[in-house]
Amino acid sequence: MTEAYLIYASSDRDPNLFYWGHFRAPDPFFALKINEKTIAVVSTLEYGRCKKESTFSEVLLWSDILQAVTNPSIVDNCCKIILYLQKAYGVSVFIVPDDFPAHLYETLKKLVPIKFDTDYFQTQRQFKSEAEVEHIKAACQLTSQAILYARAILKKSCADTTQSLLYYRGKILTSERLRSAIESYCLKKGGYCAGTIVSCAQQAADPHCEGMGPLYANEFIVIDVFPRLNQSGYYGDMTRTFLKGVASMRQKQLFSCVQTCQRELIGRIRPGVNTRDLMQFAQDYFEQNGFGLRKTNDVCEGFIHSVGHGLGLGLHEYPSVGINAVVLEPNMVFTIEPGLYFRDGGGVRIEDVVQVTSTGCQLLSRCPYQWIL
Amino acid sequence: MTEAYLIYASSDRDPNLFYWGHFRAPDPFFALKINEKTIAVVSTLEYGRCKKESTFSEVLLWSDILQAVTNPSIVDNCCKIILYLQKAYGVSVFIVPDDFPAHLYETLKKLVPIKFDTDYFQTQRQFKSEAEVEHIKAACQLTSQAILYARAILKKSCADTTQSLLYYRGKILTSERLRSAIESYCLKKGGYCAGTIVSCAQQAADPHCEGMGPLYANEFIVIDVFPRLNQSGYYGDMTRTFLKGVASMRQKQLFSCVQTCQRELIGRIRPGVNTRDLMQFAQDYFEQNGFGLRKTNDVCEGFIHSVGHGLGLGLHEYPSVGINAVVLEPNMVFTIEPGLYFRDGGGVRIEDVVQVTSTGCQLLSRCPYQWIL
Repeated sequence: MTEAYLIYASSDRDPNLFYWGHFRAPDPFFALKINEKTIAVVSTLEYGRCKKESTFSEVLLWSDILQAVTNPSIVDNCCKIILYLQKAYGVSVFIVPDDFPAHLYETLKKLVPIKFDTDYFQTQRQFKSEAEVEHIKAACQLTSQAILYARAILKKSCADTTQSLLYYRGKILTSERLRSAIESYCLKKGGYCAGTIVSCAQQAADPHCEGMGPLYANEFIVIDVFPRLNQSGYYGDMTRTFLKGVASMRQKQLFSCVQTCQRELIGRIRPGVNTRDLMQFAQDYFEQNGFGLRKTNDVCEGFIHSVGHGLGLGLHEYPSVGINAVVLEPNMVFTIEPGLYFRDGGGVRIEDVVQVTSTGCQLLSRCPYQWIL
Repeated sequence: MTEAYLIYASSDRDPNLFYWGHFRAPDPFFALKINEKTIAVVSTLEYGRCKKESTFSEVLLWSDILQAVTNPSIVDNCCKIILYLQKAYGVSVFIVPDDFPAHLYETLKKLVPIKFDTDYFQTQRQFKSEAEVEHIKAACQLTSQAILYARAILKKSCADTTQSLLYYRGKILTSERLRSAIESYCLKKGGYCAGTIVSCAQQAADPHCEGMGPLYANEFIVIDVFPRLNQSGYYGDMTRTFLKGVASMRQKQLFSCVQTCQRELIGRIRPGVNTRDLMQFAQDYFEQNGFGLRKTNDVCEGFIHSVGHGLGLGLHEYPSVGINAVVLEPNMVFTIEPGLYFRDGGGVRIEDVVQVTSTGCQLLSRCPYQWIL
């Protein structure tokens, strides 16, 4: 009798499931992990491809199992599958992730021993192998190229003197146009993007605002690119804040504060450090420089998000570098992306990806950076 | 006291949540629906944007609520939020979708009345409004343009005489190259694609094989394009099977069988029809023509998937047009995509999108179709 980890999800949406079998499917299916063995149960639609393309140790056909289960008291198909798996692999208990579908959990609970293991599913992908680091590096390299491509467009653009609108090749340069250029660039190089952020001035005061309409000179332009490489499935993620024209003293202060904070954070990363302390450092640093978190008139301003997030097959994964205490260990990979956001000044964010090493950290994203263009 | 529907999910991944607030966010958040009122609880990161961009009736700040709940016996943050919402809106019972996160469900169950309503969440988006139909039509129009664009490339390509490899503009035309061209085309017109299928010959025998390597003359080439319009969030979906060169008698039979089956299916759609009967019709039709489902040597061949799937903010949504019995009603929108798949012959699939009308159905996707190029 043995314990079995169980997932029921679409591997297009669930990085843990994709990690088990390196197989993309849009519809949910069952997968089991028993020691190092992984087993998938798929429909006739996916059976042939799953056997060929996936790394699952075994691929079972859903309809074969349904035929094999002859107990007439079991009518629910999912129950039939689970009872079959329980018997076939001698499963003593099924262990499911926190986000296992609740209704299915309630159904299975009446049938078989089933329990959660938050820690296992949250952390199973936290230590990246050398091959994984190479995949993330490749994704970050594409991200960096895309940022440089966007930067070149901004550099070549000119501002009209009356409204400070940016023009590129004779036409107004909008967020939409620059986003489309960046995403087309990534796509041609094998990276899928969606929702790339190109936000200017006040729009950039909302960190996840995609940006719309014209880009302006003398204002912050935040560019946040996070492509997923189609071949490997791994994400890159990088943010650079640019300004075309002349920066004011306050803009220089804001930028410099974020840049210094990011460097300080990166310098503090090593095994044994608690992510909560990194978060506290950033909060204190901004506070001391007069840019602390504040909520006024129903608006949140200052440093309004966490320091970063894990990166891999998921865009946001474990560990979160925020108020939840996580002690850093070698081969964790995450972003470091402090930022400042003000309604009257816009936003500044600088984001890179780091891998914790035995003594400190390695930058997985590199990009020459000159922010005033 | 009133019933409240409750979702905890990322609206990037959960169409039901996106439907409530028309707001994209990568990280999970709580949302409530009480009668026609929708309420979101978000972090400082998303607060400003959610208030500006979303259609939620109310946007609450996560940290405000945590501060407001002073009961020291409640330590879990999610529990604090739910207790606050229960009191603030006089909630008698929380109603959650089947795929609500199981661990959170188990936690909340000890605290508040909570139950499932499979039917509500499965069907709340099934009847498309006029505006939604227009969005889907627009997405299908882009899909059709992308298919015509791909067709033009195939048409202009030439085959070498020895290996039947296709060449376009002097270089071998591969699945990857044609996919990239299609996806770039869609992206420029505001549609996000991922995993567009361009599969040739034996590869096309797996319906979801993306396709890789050279495309060949005299073989089926299946092109399945399903972009999501960035602006509206709605999907289009269309498949066309082409053949460059000369089709064999068997290829013509296969193609004609699928095409006739699709026309027959579309002709049968009207209110009152059961989807199971459409599935049965397709199965019988293929069986009678000698192309029925078969499993030989661990390989599934013939008609190995369902007739179609609902389409909207989700790529695969309710209703599924397969063995689950659903009675069609006006304004349901779904694909009709019969197909045949054989190891020795490749695959043929033809897919269009229909809207059930009061008397029959309306095609939402139109595309002139000449399959031999």
